[in-house]
Amino acid sequence: MADLLENEPELVDAATESEDGRKRRSERSREQIIEAMFELVAQGELDPGAARIAEVANVSLRTVFRHFEEVDGLYQEMNRRVKEEVMPIVKAPFSSTNWRDTVLELVDRRSEVFERIMPYRVCGSIRRFRSAYLMQGHQDFVAMERSILDSVLPEEIRSNVVLEAAFDSVLGFDTWRRLRQDRGLSVEEARAAVRKLVEALLASV
Amino acid sequence: MADLLENEPELVDAATESEDGRKRRSERSREQIIEAMFELVAQGELDPGAARIAEVANVSLRTVFRHFEEVDGLYQEMNRRVKEEVMPIVKAPFSSTNWRDTVLELVDRRSEVFERIMPYRVCGSIRRFRSAYLMQGHQDFVAMERSILDSVLPEEIRSNVVLEAAFDSVLGFDTWRRLRQDRGLSVEEARAAVRKLVEALLASV
Repeated sequence: MADLLENEPELVDAATESEDGRKRRSERSREQIIEAMFELVAQGELDPGAARIAEVANVSLRTVFRHFEEVDGLYQEMNRRVKEEVMPIVKAPFSSTNWRDTVLELVDRRSEVFERIMPYRVCGSIRRFRSAYLMQGHQDFVAMERSILDSVLPEEIRSNVVLEAAFDSVLGFDTWRRLRQDRGLSVEEARAAVRKLVEALLASV
Repeated sequence: MADLLENEPELVDAATESEDGRKRRSERSREQIIEAMFELVAQGELDPGAARIAEVANVSLRTVFRHFEEVDGLYQEMNRRVKEEVMPIVKAPFSSTNWRDTVLELVDRRSEVFERIMPYRVCGSIRRFRSAYLMQGHQDFVAMERSILDSVLPEEIRSNVVLEAAFDSVLGFDTWRRLRQDRGLSVEEARAAVRKLVEALLASV
């Protein structure tokens, strides 16, 4: 390895730096890389490569790879932070006392969560076909959505595969993405459309 | 260019070949490339690069690029053929005589079309973030779905943005993909779930 690294200016500097200084600088690069990634995805560059991330983070390509064995590691970190951010909303207790009102409460809660995570989740859903980790991450999201819904639905609905899936798909991320991105509805309009569907479904059972 | 091509065995052969022979061989490669692409996508490799396509088509990477300026050209051709295949179903007249029954007829028709195009459309939806052409192709699909729906809905529903979008999202590809791929429902179950949603929505208006 040593001869390969000889001409890396960062590492030449590092040789004269204290252990602590190196550590601080490395942590800073790591943060810069993650921030660059969030920034790119939030701005709609949903499939940036390592080179583009290095450019925006203002670090070398090698630094990107030094921190994350492959770019998927970056997405793993992004997923972790996104989940962490929305968990307080996801885990908050419901205020409704019957299941029908709770499902409607879930509509509002999901619209809030989906709005926050939309670009990151679309990004993950693109990249999942090139990454076993991200495919698992996508499936975890789907499973989490479903398990929360199932905790709200009464047994006779939950055990009806068709009916449960109907609720699940309307309350799922894909419906939200279609309404907001493909159809260009406002948050209010998209929420009203999901609510309309859920109310119609509730009235039918 | 000539010196770059000197060592390409295919082209050395080509120099001694008749004009007609070259043309036939070129057409054959083109077909092999497109077939390889269909095969890869149908088998679930939804994001194959040019190298992988060359491997399965059993042609050189250069041959892939000679036929399609960039890989997006391949996807363009794939989209065109997929559309062509489903157009007879999409354009067939409806047999129902009132709009509510026609919407239910649309549920069955969409489930048939979506089943046929699922891997190709998922493939296009992944790659669209790297290609203006495919982004347009994705939007064309969404617009086509919507315009067929709008031709069926009566004016008072069509002009209600929230209600029209509710019908559109339930009848859209994303709902189908979620039910079939993420939730693993059978074709029959997925169709029943969409039907349940559409019936509930119809009963509410």
